[in-house]
Amino acid sequence: MAGVDYLADERKKAEFDVDSMKIVWAGSRHAFEVSDRISKLVANDPAFRKDERPMLPRKELFKNTLRKTAYAWKRIVELRLSEEEASRLRFFVDEPAYTDLHWGMFVPALKGQGTDEQQSKWLPLAYKMQIIGCYAQTELGHGSNVQGLETTATFDPQTDEFVIHSPTLTSSKWWPGGLGKVSTHAIVYARLITDGKDHGVNGFIVQLRSMEDHRPLPGITVGDIGMKFGNGAYNTMDNGVLRFDHVRIPRDQMLMRVSQVTREGKFKQSNVPRQLVYGTMVYVRKQIVADASCALSKAVCIATRYSAVRRQFGSQNGGPETQVIDYKTQQSRLFPLLASAYAFRFVGEWLEWLYTDVTKRLQANDFSTLPEAHACTAGLKSLTTSATADGIEECRKLCGGHGYLCTSGLPELFAVYVPACTYEGDNIVLLLQVARFLMKTVSQIGSGKHPVGTIAYMGRVEQLLKSRCNVQRAEDWLKPGQVLEAFEARAARMSVSCAQNLSKFSNPEEGFAELSADLVEAAVAHCQLIVVSKFLEKLQQDIPGEGVKQQLQALCGIYYLSLLHKHQGDFLATSYINPKQAALANDQLRVLYSKVRPNAVSLVDSFNYTDHFLGSILGCYDGNVYPKLYEAAWKDPLNDTVVADGYHEYVRPVLKQQLHNAKL
Amino acid sequence: MAGVDYLADERKKAEFDVDSMKIVWAGSRHAFEVSDRISKLVANDPAFRKDERPMLPRKELFKNTLRKTAYAWKRIVELRLSEEEASRLRFFVDEPAYTDLHWGMFVPALKGQGTDEQQSKWLPLAYKMQIIGCYAQTELGHGSNVQGLETTATFDPQTDEFVIHSPTLTSSKWWPGGLGKVSTHAIVYARLITDGKDHGVNGFIVQLRSMEDHRPLPGITVGDIGMKFGNGAYNTMDNGVLRFDHVRIPRDQMLMRVSQVTREGKFKQSNVPRQLVYGTMVYVRKQIVADASCALSKAVCIATRYSAVRRQFGSQNGGPETQVIDYKTQQSRLFPLLASAYAFRFVGEWLEWLYTDVTKRLQANDFSTLPEAHACTAGLKSLTTSATADGIEECRKLCGGHGYLCTSGLPELFAVYVPACTYEGDNIVLLLQVARFLMKTVSQIGSGKHPVGTIAYMGRVEQLLKSRCNVQRAEDWLKPGQVLEAFEARAARMSVSCAQNLSKFSNPEEGFAELSADLVEAAVAHCQLIVVSKFLEKLQQDIPGEGVKQQLQALCGIYYLSLLHKHQGDFLATSYINPKQAALANDQLRVLYSKVRPNAVSLVDSFNYTDHFLGSILGCYDGNVYPKLYEAAWKDPLNDTVVADGYHEYVRPVLKQQLHNAKL
Repeated sequence: MAGVDYLADERKKAEFDVDSMKIVWAGSRHAFEVSDRISKLVANDPAFRKDERPMLPRKELFKNTLRKTAYAWKRIVELRLSEEEASRLRFFVDEPAYTDLHWGMFVPALKGQGTDEQQSKWLPLAYKMQIIGCYAQTELGHGSNVQGLETTATFDPQTDEFVIHSPTLTSSKWWPGGLGKVSTHAIVYARLITDGKDHGVNGFIVQLRSMEDHRPLPGITVGDIGMKFGNGAYNTMDNGVLRFDHVRIPRDQMLMRVSQVTREGKFKQSNVPRQLVYGTMVYVRKQIVADASCALSKAVCIATRYSAVRRQFGSQNGGPETQVIDYKTQQSRLFPLLASAYAFRFVGEWLEWLYTDVTKRLQANDFSTLPEAHACTAGLKSLTTSATADGIEECRKLCGGHGYLCTSGLPELFAVYVPACTYEGDNIVLLLQVARFLMKTVSQIGSGKHPVGTIAYMGRVEQLLKSRCNVQRAEDWLKPGQVLEAFEARAARMSVSCAQNLSKFSNPEEGFAELSADLVEAAVAHCQLIVVSKFLEKLQQDIPGEGVKQQLQALCGIYYLSLLHKHQGDFLATSYINPKQAALANDQLRVLYSKVRPNAVSLVDSFNYTDHFLGSILGCYDGNVYPKLYEAAWKDPLNDTVVADGYHEYVRPVLKQQLHNAKL
Repeated sequence: MAGVDYLADERKKAEFDVDSMKIVWAGSRHAFEVSDRISKLVANDPAFRKDERPMLPRKELFKNTLRKTAYAWKRIVELRLSEEEASRLRFFVDEPAYTDLHWGMFVPALKGQGTDEQQSKWLPLAYKMQIIGCYAQTELGHGSNVQGLETTATFDPQTDEFVIHSPTLTSSKWWPGGLGKVSTHAIVYARLITDGKDHGVNGFIVQLRSMEDHRPLPGITVGDIGMKFGNGAYNTMDNGVLRFDHVRIPRDQMLMRVSQVTREGKFKQSNVPRQLVYGTMVYVRKQIVADASCALSKAVCIATRYSAVRRQFGSQNGGPETQVIDYKTQQSRLFPLLASAYAFRFVGEWLEWLYTDVTKRLQANDFSTLPEAHACTAGLKSLTTSATADGIEECRKLCGGHGYLCTSGLPELFAVYVPACTYEGDNIVLLLQVARFLMKTVSQIGSGKHPVGTIAYMGRVEQLLKSRCNVQRAEDWLKPGQVLEAFEARAARMSVSCAQNLSKFSNPEEGFAELSADLVEAAVAHCQLIVVSKFLEKLQQDIPGEGVKQQLQALCGIYYLSLLHKHQGDFLATSYINPKQAALANDQLRVLYSKVRPNAVSLVDSFNYTDHFLGSILGCYDGNVYPKLYEAAWKDPLNDTVVADGYHEYVRPVLKQQLHNAKL
């Protein structure tokens, strides 16, 4: 039955132009064309197969990743791919590898923190991969609190060198990707000590392995930290442990763009603004938000297609059972996630703009929008990664029992995704940073300082505190102005309420600690408002393609109304809406589910993911799920023999009551 | 530093008698003593080691499980363990294996559905493990809907046999544990067909493999369905696929306690009530609830101990950083899970009583309480397994980055646990069953039928619809009567509101489908009420031990107040409480967190888990986490060699720009 499309009926139902939506999702026609071309190039090359990944033992898995990574680099060079194309190729190979850190952290750190001379020395080597670098910041005992790092870099004026040292077990570098078995160099973060004085944490370029035989250099102990969550997943990466025993590096290997140490050992700050570091943070976090929409959309694509294939119950007169996607319980769990994938895509697109704006301003020494941009990206990183991690697991459950099989692709997608909730700022720590910013903003109301950007609504706080929701019919919940006011009123009221409770404490820090759980909730309300408002703004734009904007409007409605329903306690507790209006929101939500239902499969087709990239039998494009599951089962190593390896030693003696003699 | 207890200071803070709490947790002194003895027996026997599990490739992993299972059986026989002790031993070995299905499904099915003659023929073989059995119900295309199974058992009066057959690919048996590589026999569920007529699904004893050489019998295709979620985890189990090509079995291998087929091929129902099947369901589900409290308590134990070990931020004057467990954000996520573990333990204890009660009544042909007992166990299965799956992942996140390492134990705990949300009734399908029962109860109000058991509060529905919360100060939320009324009022109002909305539909089934998401929420409210009320009832009992009851009261308060906060939308929307009262609940919650904080480590010590059973470096009893993590890292296969396997083929050519010649 090769070639039959079992989802053809679903695809015929679409009420919009799928090709146009593909371009909306990709961001531009150019972006679509590059992704489409490169993803097919990867999918059609058997060297990039990944279906055997969950079955490979660690060593083979890792070796296989080394092979793919080298092959990908070879193809990039052979095909003379542009930087954009090369980056898409690595993306579609879809396997964590040392190159992620080399290109994503090592090179940017050199660019951002190295002087011009350092850049001209090290960057050409890195660009050609004549050296491979990683980013060694976190330690066994120190994660979120960078200022608590223990590794030391002590300047020795006698030799003009730094002595890098791990004074304690907990100071062992721990987690850096690419460190364990591959990197030849690392950017090591260590406490700079000159003349007995601690100048805080700075970055240093340290060679780890011999360029001749790849063995660790004297004084360096380095290895892999062991297996991580899941089959395949991040076990393709050599997250590493690293200890220094008085390792010496030349003085010019301290990254000196912002701070310097002179030949005499004097510590100096340059006139390069330290705020530059926030620019990098905005860059990294916008990337994480983009990754969130991608990971969530993969999970949603799998769950949507399989929900259209799978049938359970509801058979009438011996006819086929009902498609699972027709159940309202399924829709009420799946469609908000579909809507979230689109919502995160558009807020990610807006973050691209924000990053450009921040960069321009930094170049003009305008730091005025930095605190807002920093709070906003921290919050969005937290919001989107948490929702995505939970959403992937929800999609797995939406696939019933078969979601538990590795061939569904969902276990690996979850396992490989969840660290995003912890790295680059633990999600709760980030929300507390947002909350601090919110409390500061509230405290400045009336001081003449006008909040800007995503926090501008706080300038209208008095009005927002007084307003009441005007919704009288379910359809009123489709009015963008009404919705925006509801989310603004909720966020403003929760912030003001926290500020009022904080003011009862004589020690503000104690108050902040005591009320931190409430503050986190206020921060979430603020971040959800941002996502809702950027989705609504997107809909103000001209969006070509028949029916495309209508579908996006329905998805936007599902996004904000499902949030409103989930958090109705917030909206009711702040008395902006009443219970009747909350019920009307829920009614409207059901209407929107019905509207999206016939378009669901086409809305996930719009992501334009190849079966290779998706890596899921349940989510395969043609919906021919069961024969593929059946066929894949027989490839498990346990099926190599009809009678199990171990039967003679361990099962037969049980059955034959001969355990007393058995060697166990 | 062997022997040092790094958590000794925490243990000194306890304000209650830990030994007494251990007995409360175990359920009785006897239960404590058995568990304590058997868990240590397992922990001290190196044959039961499990720390290498995540690193083993599938075949070795499976073979190792076969060895452990045989060894466990050998020890059970050698030590002449009682049935209770044997079951505890399998429990503490803590590794999914074919014996789970043999003892947990195959034997009970024979007992429950077999005639006396069938039992006397098959049970002795099963008890001695001369045959190994599994439970083959679900099919590739059929999970929740048992009535949709496609496998057929057609009676052939000529030979007095049934012909078991798989007519389609989707009728392949799929998922049964122990089926893939081990079981010699299975209880196969198939549509009984006699004389061309379909009599629905019945159970049949089918031999699968030769007792001589373990090869599948003619007409039988059987194998493993492949890798499942996670490292180790359920990959120790041979979940199987099974197809029949006209396999013949004698007529007396149909399980005939409830239905029979005569020699002539006539289908008959016995006078044994079909309701017996509900008794089995209550049995299986009470076990699942007990497993939920166990799995959640393991995760909470790990997260609590590591939160006391781990320090981040807040260092003053160069002193140590703050213990993570002292942060209110940590407490507000961790302590409700600690409280849930205890809550589920006690509701599980109550289910033991319910099962005894149901069994007695069934024997007396009293079926009056069955619908309520069935709805109640279905709902509690759903509630506790969903909360536990989410709770384990939350505990993993509460451990920061290190929770992502397999040595934390949390990835495997999650991966091995999550199927509980799907097997034995998908959690959403079960909640819809509860909702049906609720709607039926509401519809019968005033008909003279008095609701009993956990639904008795519906008898007071008029009063509950009118009542308003009396809470004026935060402490008022500690009054059991007040709390019970709040949860009853919420549940009753949500059910009544659903019933009112349903009555607007002319077709009730259409209404039920359309409003199913709301109905699920009403069912959750009902189930949460049950757990809260059983925890409150437990506290009415005499509980010996200094300070024990006080701690349980604090945990109970945290359980219901955190639920009230999380679902405050329900309580506010039904207007039983006002926003001020919701805020007071939140204030009281923070007070209770402070009360539990000094006791937290001792409250998880009370589970009395050995380090072997816990299987987590982060959760180790002595808190000596970092040296153990460091040491464990070096055992990863990647660290077998200093220079990685694959360096010469795949890394060196990259570094030396020699990719054009490389064989990739």
